Amino acid sequence: MSVPSSAVGTAQIGVTGLAVMGRNLARNFARHGYTVALHNRTFARTQSLVAEHAADGTFVPSESMADFVASLARPRKVVIMVQAGAATDAVIDELVPLLEEGDIVVDAGNAHFPDTIRREAALRERGLHFVGTGVSGGEEGALNGPSIMPGGTAESYASLGPILEAISAKVDGVPCCTHVGPDGAGHFVKMVHNGIEYADMQLIAEAYDLLRHGLGASAPEIGEVFAAWNTGDLESYLIEVTAEVLAHTDAATGAPFVDVVADAAEQKGTGRWTVQNGLDLGVPITGIAEATFARALSGSAPQRAAARGVLPADTLEWNVPEPGAFIEDVRLALYASKVVAYSQGFDQIAAASAQYGWDIDRGAMARIWRGGCIIRAKFLDRITQAYERDANLPLLLADPYFTAAVANGVAAWRRIVAAAAVHGVPTPAFSSSLAYYDGVRADRLPANLIQAQRDFFGAHTYRRTDRDGTFHTDWSGDRAEQTW
Amino acid sequence: MSVPSSAVGTAQIGVTGLAVMGRNLARNFARHGYTVALHNRTFARTQSLVAEHAADGTFVPSESMADFVASLARPRKVVIMVQAGAATDAVIDELVPLLEEGDIVVDAGNAHFPDTIRREAALRERGLHFVGTGVSGGEEGALNGPSIMPGGTAESYASLGPILEAISAKVDGVPCCTHVGPDGAGHFVKMVHNGIEYADMQLIAEAYDLLRHGLGASAPEIGEVFAAWNTGDLESYLIEVTAEVLAHTDAATGAPFVDVVADAAEQKGTGRWTVQNGLDLGVPITGIAEATFARALSGSAPQRAAARGVLPADTLEWNVPEPGAFIEDVRLALYASKVVAYSQGFDQIAAASAQYGWDIDRGAMARIWRGGCIIRAKFLDRITQAYERDANLPLLLADPYFTAAVANGVAAWRRIVAAAAVHGVPTPAFSSSLAYYDGVRADRLPANLIQAQRDFFGAHTYRRTDRDGTFHTDWSGDRAEQTW
Repeated sequence: MSVPSSAVGTAQIGVTGLAVMGRNLARNFARHGYTVALHNRTFARTQSLVAEHAADGTFVPSESMADFVASLARPRKVVIMVQAGAATDAVIDELVPLLEEGDIVVDAGNAHFPDTIRREAALRERGLHFVGTGVSGGEEGALNGPSIMPGGTAESYASLGPILEAISAKVDGVPCCTHVGPDGAGHFVKMVHNGIEYADMQLIAEAYDLLRHGLGASAPEIGEVFAAWNTGDLESYLIEVTAEVLAHTDAATGAPFVDVVADAAEQKGTGRWTVQNGLDLGVPITGIAEATFARALSGSAPQRAAARGVLPADTLEWNVPEPGAFIEDVRLALYASKVVAYSQGFDQIAAASAQYGWDIDRGAMARIWRGGCIIRAKFLDRITQAYERDANLPLLLADPYFTAAVANGVAAWRRIVAAAAVHGVPTPAFSSSLAYYDGVRADRLPANLIQAQRDFFGAHTYRRTDRDGTFHTDWSGDRAEQTW
Repeated sequence: MSVPSSAVGTAQIGVTGLAVMGRNLARNFARHGYTVALHNRTFARTQSLVAEHAADGTFVPSESMADFVASLARPRKVVIMVQAGAATDAVIDELVPLLEEGDIVVDAGNAHFPDTIRREAALRERGLHFVGTGVSGGEEGALNGPSIMPGGTAESYASLGPILEAISAKVDGVPCCTHVGPDGAGHFVKMVHNGIEYADMQLIAEAYDLLRHGLGASAPEIGEVFAAWNTGDLESYLIEVTAEVLAHTDAATGAPFVDVVADAAEQKGTGRWTVQNGLDLGVPITGIAEATFARALSGSAPQRAAARGVLPADTLEWNVPEPGAFIEDVRLALYASKVVAYSQGFDQIAAASAQYGWDIDRGAMARIWRGGCIIRAKFLDRITQAYERDANLPLLLADPYFTAAVANGVAAWRRIVAAAAVHGVPTPAFSSSLAYYDGVRADRLPANLIQAQRDFFGAHTYRRTDRDGTFHTDWSGDRAEQTW
């Protein structure tokens, strides 16, 4: 089947790759009045989409890539929604010879941002725009309004942006989509979004674990606590999801659902990428790192089997005298730790923006995460406001709103981290976030000792507090100081 | 100048790259009776080595690479000691056309192990052996006996190994050198060695900081504590170095030396590589990660400036009632945290060995780290013994010796981590190590909640505790469970 001549050049946007995400994005475009060209490796899937969802709007299905391209109005806008990696490159290779100068290729998959930088450069050489875009919100978001984080040129955004904004989630009428920055910026920001999501989820899991151990509470009881928290500062999609899954009963056993779910968390790589990049940039993103490693530990079956029942707990008995006060302490500790995780993630965006020349508006990132995506939360408004007050804010934690918001909970945070240590509840993300807080505010860190050690054994030199320069002490000789 | 004909083919080993590390390695070979061919990009440096250190033994200096190669007996053994990266590749490119089948090229620099895998494959195709070897111990070690971690083929080790063993450090008469495994194994193990070194140094720094804050002790007073610790379980080079630098007085000010050293720790990349690889392998190496990020945080000047005096401490006043008991608690916490860091590092070696097909003997690695290198310690004997008891030990912590050694300090460890939290002393590595300990021994981790969340928002599925299979709950529909 080829495109009827009446359809040539009529589609405003095309989608190739019609698995569930691509399918739902295509439907979302159609529902917003766009004529949508469709293509998929196996044509049957394209046909079923058209057959089942004709009511969504106007689709132009094509069996061949050539017909698909022919059906698009210029400049052509082609959204690729296939597996990240080799599959994406294969589609690009097939597509590019069919395109003309000024056409726009959009990769809406979960590409690693260095791949996006590479692809953008390659397509730019051929006169094409390549837009790597983050799309968050899962299947449901793709259909009903995701958070969209497109990179690429400003020129490509001028024609593509309005279409993406139209299908994105809206909060207070504002689209959850904006031009993030050049080349890999969009996929980078999506990666950090996912990293923050890892931290957020781990912090919630630790709060749940503390309530479970501290109060001996059941999953549905803890679900009620989360439901209550969802009416306050912590209000967010992830807290809402937590309340839902904790309240759910397993039909097969009649037990609380989470009690029959295996405690080995999986991951698809974006947390790992985020931490690896944080290491490259030298930005301490300890909350995301601990969350990523906590998932790895949960899945380390041989290690856990070797330790279980073997390593002594040696904990004190835990009698929480006032459950209400304890719950409030956990809430405050969760909130403070969450602010740290976000502060670290926004630090990473700033560092990457400087390193890769992206000029990313951090306030705008918080704004487009308010809806559609997994970490959507009211809280993000406060982050936008912080960067509106100071676009170059060096530390989100030090914004007056967040300093005050956290100040209120510091004592509780300390009590909770101490209680977890004493009672043997692993809270790597709570603890690490507090250590970061105490580290970043410290007048003097013990890094002086580390520099002294490095100079001793490796002549790595040190700086002094009282004058400029680089110094080395002749440790194996007369221990005189030398200027290097 | 070309090699006199009498010297052609006489040198048993050659060194190219005669900066301080190469120079000292060459002298070490000569002192052990080997005839050493010498080459350097600028010949003056070669000449000065020969002029200044003729007493060390027999050197054969060459100005050109061709003469240098000609001066070596076959199979030629050429040690390259230049900067990692492009400089190493440049020397290899110059060297390779001059070599013949069976010759051995040794990279003794700090290469990243994937580069070593690549180079080994390239040289193998040309019939040459490429040995990437870790050398630890700094300048002094290079001269007087380093710890040496060579990778490459068993065939290359048969002729090269005895020479490296001869110049290595010895502990109880045993060389601190062994064949680590194929291609990148040597540089990999050296990288993990350095990662563990980061953790070790951070833990020591945290112990110092706790003593400083808890007791209000001066640097020399704390130095005495470390000197005392160096007579017990913690006995190690790094503890010895710590005692030395804490006892040192700054001549310019008369103040304790460490008090005038800037508290911004630097790094050269091996900690970062180690953590990035731990993430790739899915091995939780939280101690090394926190240590690496702690260095990054110490150097985050704008963030620290923004936070200092702004973020409220809200800590309790700290009155340690019994200084002796507190010091002992810190010692026990340091020891336990250190065991965790090593346990994690050896886990990483096991995972890498399986992943890359290296068949690394972990007990042998601990053995060759007992002398010459920065983390040298008596403690490593215990690790060797643990892997002699069980070569496939899944978790070093669960070896009976280490379980018992740590058990003794668990309560103290909990007290110290809790005290640090309450009193606002950042102890990211102590806290993270305890969280790992409590995580790995936990009967149930809250990862069940994370999997439930992932299934809710992304249909990522979950496993159950009571039967095999992969499941998904139709959260947006009737909430029935589906088998996937």
